[in-house]
Amino acid sequence: MPDKVRIAIDAMGGDHGASVILPGAEISLVRHPDIEYVVFGNSAVVEPVLAGLPRLKAASRFVHTEVAIRMDDKPSQALRYGRWKSSMWLALDAVKKGDADVVVSAGNTGALMAMARFNLKMMEGIERPAIAALWPTLKGESIVLDVGASIGADENHLINLAMMGSAMARVLFDIDKPTVGLLNIGVEEVKGLEQVREAGRILREQPTPHFEYHGFVEGNDIGKGTVDVVVTEGFAGNIALKTAEGTARQFGQYLKSAMSRTFAARLGYLLARQAFQTMREKMDPQRANGGVFLGLNGVVIKSHGGANAMGFAAAIDLGYDMVRYELLAKIGQSMARDLPASTGTERVASGAAS
Amino acid sequence: MPDKVRIAIDAMGGDHGASVILPGAEISLVRHPDIEYVVFGNSAVVEPVLAGLPRLKAASRFVHTEVAIRMDDKPSQALRYGRWKSSMWLALDAVKKGDADVVVSAGNTGALMAMARFNLKMMEGIERPAIAALWPTLKGESIVLDVGASIGADENHLINLAMMGSAMARVLFDIDKPTVGLLNIGVEEVKGLEQVREAGRILREQPTPHFEYHGFVEGNDIGKGTVDVVVTEGFAGNIALKTAEGTARQFGQYLKSAMSRTFAARLGYLLARQAFQTMREKMDPQRANGGVFLGLNGVVIKSHGGANAMGFAAAIDLGYDMVRYELLAKIGQSMARDLPASTGTERVASGAAS
Repeated sequence: MPDKVRIAIDAMGGDHGASVILPGAEISLVRHPDIEYVVFGNSAVVEPVLAGLPRLKAASRFVHTEVAIRMDDKPSQALRYGRWKSSMWLALDAVKKGDADVVVSAGNTGALMAMARFNLKMMEGIERPAIAALWPTLKGESIVLDVGASIGADENHLINLAMMGSAMARVLFDIDKPTVGLLNIGVEEVKGLEQVREAGRILREQPTPHFEYHGFVEGNDIGKGTVDVVVTEGFAGNIALKTAEGTARQFGQYLKSAMSRTFAARLGYLLARQAFQTMREKMDPQRANGGVFLGLNGVVIKSHGGANAMGFAAAIDLGYDMVRYELLAKIGQSMARDLPASTGTERVASGAAS
Repeated sequence: MPDKVRIAIDAMGGDHGASVILPGAEISLVRHPDIEYVVFGNSAVVEPVLAGLPRLKAASRFVHTEVAIRMDDKPSQALRYGRWKSSMWLALDAVKKGDADVVVSAGNTGALMAMARFNLKMMEGIERPAIAALWPTLKGESIVLDVGASIGADENHLINLAMMGSAMARVLFDIDKPTVGLLNIGVEEVKGLEQVREAGRILREQPTPHFEYHGFVEGNDIGKGTVDVVVTEGFAGNIALKTAEGTARQFGQYLKSAMSRTFAARLGYLLARQAFQTMREKMDPQRANGGVFLGLNGVVIKSHGGANAMGFAAAIDLGYDMVRYELLAKIGQSMARDLPASTGTERVASGAAS
């Protein structure tokens, strides 16, 4: 474990760019003084902001880049004009070259994933990447993956997701054996996808020293916090994540309009505003901001494009924890020891080291 | 359209059985005095409850049945012991024989679907059934289907879902051309399932006189009410539905605990309790209770097993509207006129009449 955690920042991504990203980086630096940043971006944009943040500036090395990836370009377009030279590419490249331990970007998700795959390559034994999300639950937080890196999953990929997700839970939640559930549907007639059932059978029958297989869970179990790690393929996972975000926003709107309708309600709101604030913080997606790209030879954190400085700081904090508590090494342990016979490929721990 | 709406009730289903179902039927009868019921169930259970509800009793014909389907049996088991003689089967059979226009059951979903397919058979031109759910949104309500009748969908099934869902929207929302969206995921890199894209292409290119194709929608669009009808295959649809239920419950819990934490918050709660009540009603799943089974030669409404009397009444109301405003005929119109060339099968309106 290095003395310093070296974080590469793509300062050009997100809806607000450097004006939110750099203040976010400073917030995280105050919490973790052992961070060293490498900041990639256009000097005309970045340097004025850095000049106003002397503490951040002192802990950062700045690298000027001419090209920035646009938020709505397709991955193929982004690769065409941004490979080798964009702030996003060079931030990833810093991890590839060993100049940084983790990269954090609020940029275009598809482009970031495409560049990460292209540059960092997949871990040995893993064929497809995944995006893991932190999900607030009634018991605290759970990890849900895949929330949209790829569509569909056979039983081997689902088992890989279980191994990677549980490694992330060990890093984040400080538990030895996180519980893992496979997301399925409860209607008896259909009994769920064949691949999900097959993955369930393998996970029940084979030893999993680094996590405890709980069984199937349904959509409503995610918010309950029934398990630490919810495993699903990316199409259903992305729809679940976005649907929950939509429902939370809907509830917030209902509450807002209900609390402003009458004088008594407005007065009640004033009296209870501290309680509302606490609740809002609990539901605030900024608090648990950041998807983790898993399966790559390097740690990549994707912040929401619309995150504010606090949100971007949360994404950096997540990246910091992933490095400090050695996510990649823990995934490597799982790959080497959990379910060694689950696929035809021989898996070795060294293949997982970045 | 008949003078009376004849509703077959399976009085033995659900977590609470006849003691909730029959009071629910009476509530709906008060709202719709043109209902006639046929009630199926065990006389030892049903008759004492009916005796206490004279108004309902006067509008009902009661049929004694020996066998009741258990809530947790598999469809195959239920068919084995319940075919020809259970309250569930005979309620469906009343629709099949033309003795009733719609059946409402709070029983075992898988068993109800299996018996409905077996007894009523699929509509001509439709190979697989669907379950449509009413979803409360910021704009009112939308229809989401399929929420779990079958897993996976090719482009033809997705188009059938669009036709059936839009026919249901025309019945319920009193609009000529409901908007229809295909649920997809927004990560550019993966661009969504091939079948979803292909269905989108067909819906864009071909005329759809009975609905307006909006395009792709994402999970967070459901709660926004972006479209009247959200079309998805049953695995993702079921996960979206259950995830939203879980998130709503989670929000309710946060609110409850936040509002009881301090004296000021408790006082605020008292002042605002009318506002909270309004909000709770908006989020209450009982208000929009009832999944509609689509694609069968008959109208089948599934109430939540845990519904209370008000919830069961909502499910009956839904069935009432489906009959009164001629759901099956409207589906038949769509099948005959929308997208006639979308599959190889010749579709005729008469094939859809029950």
